[in-house]
Amino acid sequence: MSLEQDILAGNNRLAERNRGWLAGRNIVAFNLVSSPGSGKTTVLERTLRDMGGEIPISVVEGDQETEFDAERIRATGCRTVQINTGTGCHLEAGMLAQALTELDPPVDSLLMIENVGNLVCPAMFDLGEHTKVAILSVTEGADKPLKYPHMFRASSLMVLNKIDLLPHVDFDVDACIAHARRVNPDVEVLRLSARTGEGMDLWYDWLRRRMDSRWLAEPASYGERAGA
Amino acid sequence: MSLEQDILAGNNRLAERNRGWLAGRNIVAFNLVSSPGSGKTTVLERTLRDMGGEIPISVVEGDQETEFDAERIRATGCRTVQINTGTGCHLEAGMLAQALTELDPPVDSLLMIENVGNLVCPAMFDLGEHTKVAILSVTEGADKPLKYPHMFRASSLMVLNKIDLLPHVDFDVDACIAHARRVNPDVEVLRLSARTGEGMDLWYDWLRRRMDSRWLAEPASYGERAGA
Repeated sequence: MSLEQDILAGNNRLAERNRGWLAGRNIVAFNLVSSPGSGKTTVLERTLRDMGGEIPISVVEGDQETEFDAERIRATGCRTVQINTGTGCHLEAGMLAQALTELDPPVDSLLMIENVGNLVCPAMFDLGEHTKVAILSVTEGADKPLKYPHMFRASSLMVLNKIDLLPHVDFDVDACIAHARRVNPDVEVLRLSARTGEGMDLWYDWLRRRMDSRWLAEPASYGERAGA
Repeated sequence: MSLEQDILAGNNRLAERNRGWLAGRNIVAFNLVSSPGSGKTTVLERTLRDMGGEIPISVVEGDQETEFDAERIRATGCRTVQINTGTGCHLEAGMLAQALTELDPPVDSLLMIENVGNLVCPAMFDLGEHTKVAILSVTEGADKPLKYPHMFRASSLMVLNKIDLLPHVDFDVDACIAHARRVNPDVEVLRLSARTGEGMDLWYDWLRRRMDSRWLAEPASYGERAGA
């Protein structure tokens, strides 16, 4: 469909511009994507409280309506801008460009973009981030990577959240990881509970490795070099 | 945006045609919408097992990929057709029209349409159903009706699912219902657990009332007449 291609091509140009803007400030940016209610904001809140003193972190919040998430993030003392998409189902690169101007994030910092809760549409839209991080809560079912493969293919990390609820739900962790690797053989996986804090140290280590300057300089080849 | 309006206008014409097709067969159709993993398929599985002998029920399943849900539904002995949307984020009326031809649902029956798991995009697309039913699981957070108001405005019933998990999550049921009524003052609410079966009888009663022939004849005025 040529119209869809036009929209994506326009978005991708602006995303490339964002990537340059972020590289110019030596900022690592992650695009957090998930279903509504998977715990993106709770992961961010705890990350800001635990790591905000170590790395400067700014946040861009995306939702159809309300400032709820920005208020929760601001309560941690973090710089944040809320984008409301109205009937829109995803963030686009142009929205991020505007938010970056308003946010003015510092050099050598980390930028977290919390996308609209939607496991479908944000997969198609590059914002200029280093990578997407897909958050899946264990209450959602282990079949999701196969049913929504585009998102799990577009993400280099899958965070399995709400593992404190594992005793109360039917969720096969190994099957879920196998499903994710079937659509994306290189996907990394972390298991944690943003509510109890279990496993958050693995996420912080993951973020620290990505603040490594070599990765900043050459994001595309990091995996290769890290493995060397 | 005139293009968006064109797409919606085209969809709405086909939806009206579906509505006529369904009315011609005296079929009541519900469009089940929710985030991924809210339990739409589990609600359907239990409904088919408990009510399939009482009312003929057919199912149309929507997902980006896989036949998983259709296989689960078929295992109950129900007629079903799976639609895969690929990169698409919602069902459209034209897809339902095709599925109806293939499914060939009997007269005087109930049709359940399980939309793609997405709390955003399916809100915009009428399929010709009698009404949308929004399913929200208590693991997703009580703020969702305000953050995704279009879906809760488009639905005449909100089903709060997974209430068996209430002791293990921070979810304020009253606040959630108040949020839903703020965006849709007339929304009905049912609380249930498709996993344990608690509250399913209320859902079955709700379905039975909607199979009432007066409602079939004049869906728009049912609320008024039922209250008279």
